Amino acid sequence: MGRRPTALIDMDQPAPPIPDLARLAVHTMTHQPWSLAQCIAAYQPLGVSALSVWRNTIDPNLGGVTPNDAGAMLRDAGFTVPALVRGGFFPAFEEPDRQQALDDNRRAIDEAATINAEMVVLVVGAVPDMPLDEARMHVADGIADLLDHAEARNIKLAIEPLHPMYAADRSCINRMAEAREICQQLDHPLVGIALDVYHLWWDPDLEFEIRRAGQMGTLFAYHICDWRPLTRDLLNDRGLMGDGCIDLKSIRAAVEATGFTGHHEVEIFSDEYWAMDQAQYAPKIIAAYLQYA
Amino acid sequence: MGRRPTALIDMDQPAPPIPDLARLAVHTMTHQPWSLAQCIAAYQPLGVSALSVWRNTIDPNLGGVTPNDAGAMLRDAGFTVPALVRGGFFPAFEEPDRQQALDDNRRAIDEAATINAEMVVLVVGAVPDMPLDEARMHVADGIADLLDHAEARNIKLAIEPLHPMYAADRSCINRMAEAREICQQLDHPLVGIALDVYHLWWDPDLEFEIRRAGQMGTLFAYHICDWRPLTRDLLNDRGLMGDGCIDLKSIRAAVEATGFTGHHEVEIFSDEYWAMDQAQYAPKIIAAYLQYA
Repeated sequence: MGRRPTALIDMDQPAPPIPDLARLAVHTMTHQPWSLAQCIAAYQPLGVSALSVWRNTIDPNLGGVTPNDAGAMLRDAGFTVPALVRGGFFPAFEEPDRQQALDDNRRAIDEAATINAEMVVLVVGAVPDMPLDEARMHVADGIADLLDHAEARNIKLAIEPLHPMYAADRSCINRMAEAREICQQLDHPLVGIALDVYHLWWDPDLEFEIRRAGQMGTLFAYHICDWRPLTRDLLNDRGLMGDGCIDLKSIRAAVEATGFTGHHEVEIFSDEYWAMDQAQYAPKIIAAYLQYA
Repeated sequence: MGRRPTALIDMDQPAPPIPDLARLAVHTMTHQPWSLAQCIAAYQPLGVSALSVWRNTIDPNLGGVTPNDAGAMLRDAGFTVPALVRGGFFPAFEEPDRQQALDDNRRAIDEAATINAEMVVLVVGAVPDMPLDEARMHVADGIADLLDHAEARNIKLAIEPLHPMYAADRSCINRMAEAREICQQLDHPLVGIALDVYHLWWDPDLEFEIRRAGQMGTLFAYHICDWRPLTRDLLNDRGLMGDGCIDLKSIRAAVEATGFTGHHEVEIFSDEYWAMDQAQYAPKIIAAYLQYA
């Protein structure tokens, strides 16, 4: 033990308390039953002014508004948009599938520009029969192919490592280390990492990798929620901050020690919370954020 | 990419085909509905002669036989016993809880000796509110406290890293790297690692850590099953070899390249397979082993 810089408990400074809601952002998917308009209407009077937008809410085929209308709504309400979620899904055995993924990512970049989002979050994908290291090469190649378009629209691309329980079918990148390697390979100011505590809290190298991302300028986003002991479902049983075992204050201390000044984005998939009256859930999120994040 | 020795696809030699059942072992828990006697009776005529024994089957309070009777049954039937499963669960906030865990582990070592098992598999434990690196110190201290007893009985202690989805409540060791660090710290010939593909298949450092364990003489056990894409349950939805996405032949090639000559132990928790007629399931396991492992 003790050879690696794993020790979150050795953190020099605990994170200072959160004074207000200036850095809180909520992902629309956290309120799956709500439209974008409902999210805006609910959070504006609560003093929250940042929403990360999932694509279903700006896809008319899925009951959403158009990206143009979404952009206008968010702008008129004075909301900032840390991220559009989500692009990615690069690995593919066949070239047409690869091209289709790239086209979809270019559309995501366009949509992000339209709603004035800072970045597109990339859930990078995985294919069950493709070795993970091969899939990661597809990811690096795919992101490289998007860089011209991302530059033209000035949209950042944030690789989000997903928990190893999603390695078979959703993400071949399951630690910050593998995301870092792609950042190092591409070495481009628009390519970085979205750190989600749900996926990475267990990683013995987390503090070390946060520090490196800070040095490299690749820490683009910080997503929060909690991990419930005895999690009941692989997808939709995330906890609200304070429900679980993640040492959020220590991780935030490490993140902020790098100079990170971005949002604290609440992203919670939860059948239990989605079944609640969302108008009661929103203030509960704010209270949990102020107390536990 | 490519800086770390991650690439299972770069393996020099594919694993040779499995010629017979000489190295197959089955965990009694794979047939949860069966007693130890039923496992023996079913596998003996099928040409399988190794069973790893779960403690419920040798606990009269849980409907099992006594360890003495189990030892006699296994010996009389000519079965070898790679492992008794499981000890561990070391981390605890209170000293009495810690002592209780040590006492239980000493009993497990005694039971292992009684049934002539080679090792006790350690599921090391975790406590939701204890930082993982602190918990790992409890694990190292706990194993250290067991060494005298393990020496007296000549029983190996195999640390089994568990998938990160169990980090909150079952295991603070989620990669081979952290198990290796404890092996290095204790530096004792009876302390090693049980590699279970279910828990570790996704780890980018897996091949590297297998090689190091081989060099250190700490690769004590090799457990097989498969990871089902779209896994439905965190605990009891493991796949039979061939059901999922794990590149079993490549991992076995890496394991055997170290000189490992132990058993290939089939350990599958699966509500679906436990609901089957177990007498039909046993030959299905053998066929899957010969084809996919």
